Amino acid sequence: MKEYVPRSGELFVVSGPSGAGKGTICRRLMEDPEEDQLMLSVSATTRAPREGEVDGVNYYFLSREEFEKRIENEEFLEYAEVYGNLYGTPLQPVLDTLAQGKDVLLEIDTQGAAKVKGTYPEGIFLFILPPSMRVLRQRLEGRGTDTQEVIERRLANTKAEVEEIGMYDYYVLNDDLEEAVATAKSILRAERTRVEKYALDLIRKFEEEE
Amino acid sequence: MKEYVPRSGELFVVSGPSGAGKGTICRRLMEDPEEDQLMLSVSATTRAPREGEVDGVNYYFLSREEFEKRIENEEFLEYAEVYGNLYGTPLQPVLDTLAQGKDVLLEIDTQGAAKVKGTYPEGIFLFILPPSMRVLRQRLEGRGTDTQEVIERRLANTKAEVEEIGMYDYYVLNDDLEEAVATAKSILRAERTRVEKYALDLIRKFEEEE
Repeated sequence: MKEYVPRSGELFVVSGPSGAGKGTICRRLMEDPEEDQLMLSVSATTRAPREGEVDGVNYYFLSREEFEKRIENEEFLEYAEVYGNLYGTPLQPVLDTLAQGKDVLLEIDTQGAAKVKGTYPEGIFLFILPPSMRVLRQRLEGRGTDTQEVIERRLANTKAEVEEIGMYDYYVLNDDLEEAVATAKSILRAERTRVEKYALDLIRKFEEEE
Repeated sequence: MKEYVPRSGELFVVSGPSGAGKGTICRRLMEDPEEDQLMLSVSATTRAPREGEVDGVNYYFLSREEFEKRIENEEFLEYAEVYGNLYGTPLQPVLDTLAQGKDVLLEIDTQGAAKVKGTYPEGIFLFILPPSMRVLRQRLEGRGTDTQEVIERRLANTKAEVEEIGMYDYYVLNDDLEEAVATAKSILRAERTRVEKYALDLIRKFEEEE
């Protein structure tokens, strides 16, 4: 298809509660050899690089001063402060990739996704849905690492996050991982064949080859 | 997924110019064992049954009087007269199947699809796109069965049909059949995970299992 229709890329935003499996699903998408036109968005952060982390690959490592200057200049799709460090999604690399006709995959928590919805509503928003409160509770209690209080707080957070699902375009039920990955791949594939985005290009291309 | 979310079914309308391959793609969808919740819409007609054709399977065979009464009663999603015979898509079987939470696949020419868009705009409309005018011309001329005049008329028709693609939700480029079938399957799968249709059901289901 990429030889057939000139198109700008899509921003696919993958979000959902922590523990829903969004990281695993994104990794699987990036490993798919058919997804060679899909680029993973790299975040910026003010935290120090850890051993082996490469600037521009794992993160863009910025000083706080530089990060704050970029906030000022509206150079982030979204950003947030977590435990004293700033994290954000740089806008320009995303726009550059989309302009090349490639797609961008952005894995982000639900608060970040809500901000991206505000700054780039044209994105395609996928919500990774854990199987159910019951299964989540079993998993957390089965681990035996958290106190009952922590488990209750986490379940309440997850419930609140799921109640924001209305903002998203698609849900991906992560009950069975292989099924979830297949669903996510189908969504990417289907979105690339939406007529409203490509109809004029299609008609031109179809006719010009006569 | 079908155990997870109570849902009403989707009407998938597959259309496109004649020769684009919509029949083959629909047959492949119906043969897919994963598509056991997909029902093929059966047309009604006033033409006489041919040897081996079964009422209710190949067609609903109706008298002209009965057919016209049903037109009067608005019992068709669409209908048309072709070479003196009436053909139509009965509405009630489609609605019954959808109400059971099953999906309906309707293969139809572009004029019929335009009528269905008017009577059931909630449908998901797929346009099967032939590779290009150039390839179509080569195929028709290669066959050697049609006069140049017939070929030109047919190509002009196809061109006019492709220019109506804006009415559709998705296009399926039928350059390579396997790719086209995979694209169509992805569209069906993706449409079944749209949040706007199922969000409330999802939240209820997610929480009630606690």
